[in-house]
Amino acid sequence: MSIAKMIQESVEKSSWIRKMFEEGPKMKAQFGAENVFDFSLGNPNLQAPAEFHKALAKVTAESVEFGHGYTPNPGYPFVRKAVADFIRQEQGIAATEEEVIMTCGAAGALNVILKAILDPGDEVLCPAPYFVEYGFYAQNHGGVLKTAPTNEDFTLDLDAMARAITDKTKAVLVNSPNNPTGQVYSEESLKALGKILEDKSKQYNKTIYLLSDEPYRKIVFDSIQVPSLFSCYKESIVATSYSKDLSIPGERIGWLCVHPEATYKAQLVGAMAMANRILGFVNAPGLMQRAVAASIGATVDVSQYAEKRELICNGLKEAGYTFTKPAGAFYLFPKTPTEDDVAFVRALQKERILVVPGRGFGAPGYFRIAFCMDNATITNSLPGFAKALKEFK
Amino acid sequence: MSIAKMIQESVEKSSWIRKMFEEGPKMKAQFGAENVFDFSLGNPNLQAPAEFHKALAKVTAESVEFGHGYTPNPGYPFVRKAVADFIRQEQGIAATEEEVIMTCGAAGALNVILKAILDPGDEVLCPAPYFVEYGFYAQNHGGVLKTAPTNEDFTLDLDAMARAITDKTKAVLVNSPNNPTGQVYSEESLKALGKILEDKSKQYNKTIYLLSDEPYRKIVFDSIQVPSLFSCYKESIVATSYSKDLSIPGERIGWLCVHPEATYKAQLVGAMAMANRILGFVNAPGLMQRAVAASIGATVDVSQYAEKRELICNGLKEAGYTFTKPAGAFYLFPKTPTEDDVAFVRALQKERILVVPGRGFGAPGYFRIAFCMDNATITNSLPGFAKALKEFK
Repeated sequence: MSIAKMIQESVEKSSWIRKMFEEGPKMKAQFGAENVFDFSLGNPNLQAPAEFHKALAKVTAESVEFGHGYTPNPGYPFVRKAVADFIRQEQGIAATEEEVIMTCGAAGALNVILKAILDPGDEVLCPAPYFVEYGFYAQNHGGVLKTAPTNEDFTLDLDAMARAITDKTKAVLVNSPNNPTGQVYSEESLKALGKILEDKSKQYNKTIYLLSDEPYRKIVFDSIQVPSLFSCYKESIVATSYSKDLSIPGERIGWLCVHPEATYKAQLVGAMAMANRILGFVNAPGLMQRAVAASIGATVDVSQYAEKRELICNGLKEAGYTFTKPAGAFYLFPKTPTEDDVAFVRALQKERILVVPGRGFGAPGYFRIAFCMDNATITNSLPGFAKALKEFK
Repeated sequence: MSIAKMIQESVEKSSWIRKMFEEGPKMKAQFGAENVFDFSLGNPNLQAPAEFHKALAKVTAESVEFGHGYTPNPGYPFVRKAVADFIRQEQGIAATEEEVIMTCGAAGALNVILKAILDPGDEVLCPAPYFVEYGFYAQNHGGVLKTAPTNEDFTLDLDAMARAITDKTKAVLVNSPNNPTGQVYSEESLKALGKILEDKSKQYNKTIYLLSDEPYRKIVFDSIQVPSLFSCYKESIVATSYSKDLSIPGERIGWLCVHPEATYKAQLVGAMAMANRILGFVNAPGLMQRAVAASIGATVDVSQYAEKRELICNGLKEAGYTFTKPAGAFYLFPKTPTEDDVAFVRALQKERILVVPGRGFGAPGYFRIAFCMDNATITNSLPGFAKALKEFK
C-alpha cells in the first residue's frame, strides 16, 4: 500500500460527504453563486464581534514587542487564568488555570483528551445522531466509537445509554447543543447520566469519563440555558472552541477544562499537556490565545441566528417537512420523505440545494441543514425545498 | 488505569527533559534571571522580521472584511500557490499548489504525513542523534522509530542506514540542518541515500518514502547551501515551518510538499488533507496562512545567529571542549568529559547553566546547547562552562 490502510478507509468512508462539499463550488461555477443554496458546511457566516477584532488589532500591535515564541504546551498561564475565571463565573465551578489547557479548537481538544485516556480497544460511547468526526478521533488513538440511539426528539435515551456501556467503555461523549440536531440536553438527563456513569464505574471498578463537546454553548434560543456538565458528574472534561461564539473557526483556538475535583486530575492534565505537544499542536496558536483572553465573554449576535432559525423552520413547516425545532446551534435535522436519505439529498441537489444526508451522522432517514447562511439564501431556497418534497410525496 | 498506558510511558520517558526545562524558572526565581544561563530550549530569541510584522498588521486589518472562517483542509488555495511558487524558485522543482498542504508547524506536518502513510508496526528510520519527538510522532500512528548511527562528525553513515532498512521500513526521516548537531547533510550523501531507498524499495516491492524535516533550512552559516531533497529521490516529502526563519514558533504555521513526480501523489495528498482534518488541526491557522503568504521569502537576520555561534564555539574551544562546529541551526552538541552525560549536565547546573543531556537525542556522552540566546547570556556563561569541565577532567 502506498498510504496507510486506516486513512484509506477513512477517506473512502467520508468520500461522499466530501463529494457533497465539493459540489458547492462546481455548481456555483455552473449556475452562479446566487443560484446555489449551500447548506452543507457549518462555516458560520456572521462576522466576529467588534470586541474580538479590537482585541486582535491590539495584540497584533503589541506582538512586535512580546514576539511569537513558543508558549508553554498548555498555553500562556495568564490566558489559562482568564479562561478559568470565566468558567468559574459562567458555570459556578471552582476552576483554576491548573485545570485549563488551551487547544487548537475543540477538534484539537478532543484529540488531546482521547490520546490521554484511550488504551487500545477502549470504547467511546456517544448518543446518535452524532458529529461523524468523533469516529475518526476515537480511532486515531486506538479507540472505537460506539453509539446509542436517542429519543424521537433527539433527547437522551438513558436506558439505551446504560445498556450500551460495557467493561471496555472509557468515556461517554456528549455534544450539546448538538450537531446535527440542535438539541440541548436537560440538566435532569445529564445528572441521571452522571449517576449511571458513577454506578457503571463502580461496577467495572474503573473510571468512566464524561466528555462534553460544547462549541455551540453560546448559540442558544428562547432564553434556554445549557446546563454545566461539571454539576452533573465529577469525572468530567469539557472541550470547546471559540469557533462559533466568536465566528473564528479558521483560527483554531479553544480550550479544555478538567473538573477541579476529578480523581486523577493531575495525571490527566499532565497527560493532556504531553498529548498537546506530541500530537504536533505543541501549543494553541499564541497570538489567538492573547486575542481571546483580551475579548473574553464576547459573542456574535445570536439573535441573527435566531432569525435564520425562524426563516428556515417556518419555511420548511409550511412546505410540510417534519422536524424538531432546534434549541441551539445552527442546524436543522428534518426527516426525509423516504428512508433513502441520499436519494432525497440528490433530489434537493436538482433544486440546487446542498445538504448532508443523515447517514453521515449515524441517522439515515434525515438530512442536515446548516442554516448559518445569509437570510436571502434561506428565503430563496424555500421554493426548491417545497418542490423536492412535493415530488417525493 | 486513569490515563492511557502509552501516554503514561511517554510522560515518564520525557520526564527528566521536562524537569530540565522546569528548572529554568525555579533557578531564575532563586538566583535572578540574569544569573541563570538557560540553553535548554530552542525557542528563538530573535524578533520576527519587519516584513512579517507589516504583513501581519495588514492581514489583521483586512480580516474585519474577509473574516476568520474555516479554510479548506489543505489551506487557502492562494496561499498554497504562493508557497509552491517559492519552493519552485528555491529548489528548482516544478511544485504547484496541488502538492502543498499548509500545516500547524513542522510538528503538525510530520504527524499528518505519518498518519497518512503508517500501518501498524511500520518502521520509520532516522539517523541518530535525532530530535526526540520523532519517536512519539511515529508511535502516535502505530509506527516504531528505528535509528542508525551517524559518523563521528554527525554526517550520514550510509552503510549503517542501508543495514537498518528492513521489510517493515516505510519511511526514512532526515533533519538537516540537524537538531541537535547542526550538521547539514551533503547533496552527495542524500543522493546516495536516495539510491539506497530506490534499491530497497525494489528489493521489498514497496515504496519507501524519504521525509525531510527542514525548519532550519534558512539558518545556515558560511554560505553553505542546504541541498534540495527533491533532487535526490522521487518518493519524497518535505515538512517545514516558519517557526525559525520568521521566529514565530508559537503561531504554529508551516507546510508540507510532496514531490511533484511521486508515484502516489494524489493518494498521498488526499490522505494528508484528511489526516490534517481528523487529527484535529482541521486547517492551519487562517490568519497566519495569510500573514506568511504576504511576507514570503522574509527571514530573520541569520548573521545574528552566526555571531552567537562564534561566541559559543570560541568560548568552548578555549575551555577545552570537543565538538563539531555546526553548519546550521542554532545548536551545539559537544562531547561530555564523561560517558555519563546526565552527571555532567548536573555539574553545569551547579554553574547555573541549563543544557540537555545527549541521551535525550539518542546520543549519550554529549550535551546540547541551544544558543538562540542573547549574546550576554552566552558570554557570561563561559566561565561556568570552563569551570565545570576543569572539575571533571
